[in-house]
Amino acid sequence: MQHRKTSPATDEFWMAKAIRLAAKGCYTTSPNPRVGCVIVKNDECIGQGYHIQAGTPHAEVHALVAAGDHARDATAYVTLEPCSHTGRTPPCADALIKAGVKRVVVGMTDPNPQVSGQGIERIKAAGIAVTQDVLTEQAKALNPGFIKRMESGLPWVRVKLGISLDGKIALQNGASKWITGPAARRDVQRLRAKSCAIITGSGTVIADNPSMLVRPEQAEFSDYPVSTVRQPLRVVIDSQEKLTPNWLMFNDGQPVLLVNQHFRAGFSQDTQQCHLPLSAQGKIDLSLLLAELAGRGINEVLVESGAGLAGAFLANGLVDELIVYQAPVILGDKGVSMLNLPVYDEVNQAPHLKLTDIRHIAQDIRLTYQIVSDKL
Amino acid sequence: MQHRKTSPATDEFWMAKAIRLAAKGCYTTSPNPRVGCVIVKNDECIGQGYHIQAGTPHAEVHALVAAGDHARDATAYVTLEPCSHTGRTPPCADALIKAGVKRVVVGMTDPNPQVSGQGIERIKAAGIAVTQDVLTEQAKALNPGFIKRMESGLPWVRVKLGISLDGKIALQNGASKWITGPAARRDVQRLRAKSCAIITGSGTVIADNPSMLVRPEQAEFSDYPVSTVRQPLRVVIDSQEKLTPNWLMFNDGQPVLLVNQHFRAGFSQDTQQCHLPLSAQGKIDLSLLLAELAGRGINEVLVESGAGLAGAFLANGLVDELIVYQAPVILGDKGVSMLNLPVYDEVNQAPHLKLTDIRHIAQDIRLTYQIVSDKL
Repeated sequence: MQHRKTSPATDEFWMAKAIRLAAKGCYTTSPNPRVGCVIVKNDECIGQGYHIQAGTPHAEVHALVAAGDHARDATAYVTLEPCSHTGRTPPCADALIKAGVKRVVVGMTDPNPQVSGQGIERIKAAGIAVTQDVLTEQAKALNPGFIKRMESGLPWVRVKLGISLDGKIALQNGASKWITGPAARRDVQRLRAKSCAIITGSGTVIADNPSMLVRPEQAEFSDYPVSTVRQPLRVVIDSQEKLTPNWLMFNDGQPVLLVNQHFRAGFSQDTQQCHLPLSAQGKIDLSLLLAELAGRGINEVLVESGAGLAGAFLANGLVDELIVYQAPVILGDKGVSMLNLPVYDEVNQAPHLKLTDIRHIAQDIRLTYQIVSDKL
Repeated sequence: MQHRKTSPATDEFWMAKAIRLAAKGCYTTSPNPRVGCVIVKNDECIGQGYHIQAGTPHAEVHALVAAGDHARDATAYVTLEPCSHTGRTPPCADALIKAGVKRVVVGMTDPNPQVSGQGIERIKAAGIAVTQDVLTEQAKALNPGFIKRMESGLPWVRVKLGISLDGKIALQNGASKWITGPAARRDVQRLRAKSCAIITGSGTVIADNPSMLVRPEQAEFSDYPVSTVRQPLRVVIDSQEKLTPNWLMFNDGQPVLLVNQHFRAGFSQDTQQCHLPLSAQGKIDLSLLLAELAGRGINEVLVESGAGLAGAFLANGLVDELIVYQAPVILGDKGVSMLNLPVYDEVNQAPHLKLTDIRHIAQDIRLTYQIVSDKL
């Protein structure tokens, strides 16, 4: 059998397909990462798959099952290094070896420092060629939360804000319905659905009595891989213990994590409580909370709150990404500003951002920023 | 001689060229409009021109001079209806008739209701074919200020703001150097240069002691048609008569219009004064000021001021366009909000805008809005 030479362009072509497959798991894989796999032989895809939910088969297994015996001497493209340990499913490295693939192309190595490289070593040891770091940046972009949690023990934190052109989230009287349009609000539903947890504060609960659940009919998912939408864990910070069990989100049968100092009685069994110490500012210590959430397998967190809590995350250097829906309306100086921050003496002391994405969402604009400096 | 059939596409092609020529006069024609002209014969441009400065030849004359005797039986494309009156130069309608052109294509009719259509009638009466309204929207966009002044007796008013993502124009201590980057500040220089007048308030003069002049070396003009940059008229509103003659802008040899209630002594001869009554709010009546400026031949006004004056223009329904340079920085709730407006009870009472242009300017974004509702 004649071996064709595989060019880097060919590898990137198939890896890109594997990445697109992996992205289909964006709403459902956590605490696992999003992973895609493509099996290629004679320039044809003979099997493909992606991980859907923890406890179900990994991407490689789906793809190998689809390829069947044809997998022998084929090339497997996997967005993330195949696992070498037995968890709820057997190691994927072994499955690839057993199937007799000739070469494995990997997007990125496992970000867990304790196992990183072990899957690749196992495959190499079986005499299979391995090509690493193909479309690594794009492969990493699939799993900002999983990677950060593995590397640092903290989840990826996004702060979402819906603002007027002049940076206000409400009028002086608190009215905020509606600053952004329906298309932007649908986009927020999908952002929420991608998140493992939504963090909010008691102030927002008392002001809006929100559910913070994903409303599938409003989200308009184009492609949802399972029949029941995975709801994010609602995390409610109640430093002053102002909340009573009667608010909507404590009574809709979906899990809530109530974060406070002491046990509060009267909440339903769907409301778990998490007790954390207060920081010097008399508020729940947000870095401890994030570490706690990571410990519970939370990869990506969305902060949907008022200006106080969102500002505290930013001022404490805990924000990775800021997602701003900006509406073409001006609420004026008496409105409520979007982020409470300390007083600065010079502009260069204020948090600086880097715009990574901008797009029209009907009449609004969605701006995505990463934080450049949070030296506060 | 055989006559070719001219298609609408051909007419638009040449009119687009005439419009691009007209735009070269964007910094210098006022109080006259920007006008371009192309003379075309046998699908070739045989003459072209644009109006540069009031008192110098109109676009048609430049183009006819370039075409010479070839203009006979040619088609003339003019962005604005040729004039029929003798001002500082003879009527262009007569020049086209005398040159023997066969057809005249016009972008838009004269917006001055007293002369509109007269130039076209004169040309038609000479037996020359006239095609009207070719690329009218684009032709109108050349002269928003001239058109508005002719139609309503008011100039086109732009408000320019340099803001943080959260809509602040300064820190609590007033520091604003630098929120936006150097490329955005260069863009502001060109915006200033296009304006016939810059309006500011005594607060800005006292805070920044600005010159408000165009700095050509900073503007980086790609194409400036005359050797000396035309400086906009600086208009300083001093309702409370706080300003003394020692501020920079009163001593740089360039004209200033000081707007107050009563004559103030001690200002240099470059400082003209304009006395206007106060409105019910105890401030100079801004609509009277705009009418006064229009009477002085001011087509386009740029408001570069603090949140109070800019907000007053907006709250009074006097703003046509808002140009916002938004920097990727967050100044926080203690910063100075960009526009002071009344207290609203509902979001739909606040000024709503329509985004007409958005572009990256280095790390900043420039957003251009027209005002949709100013029902206040």
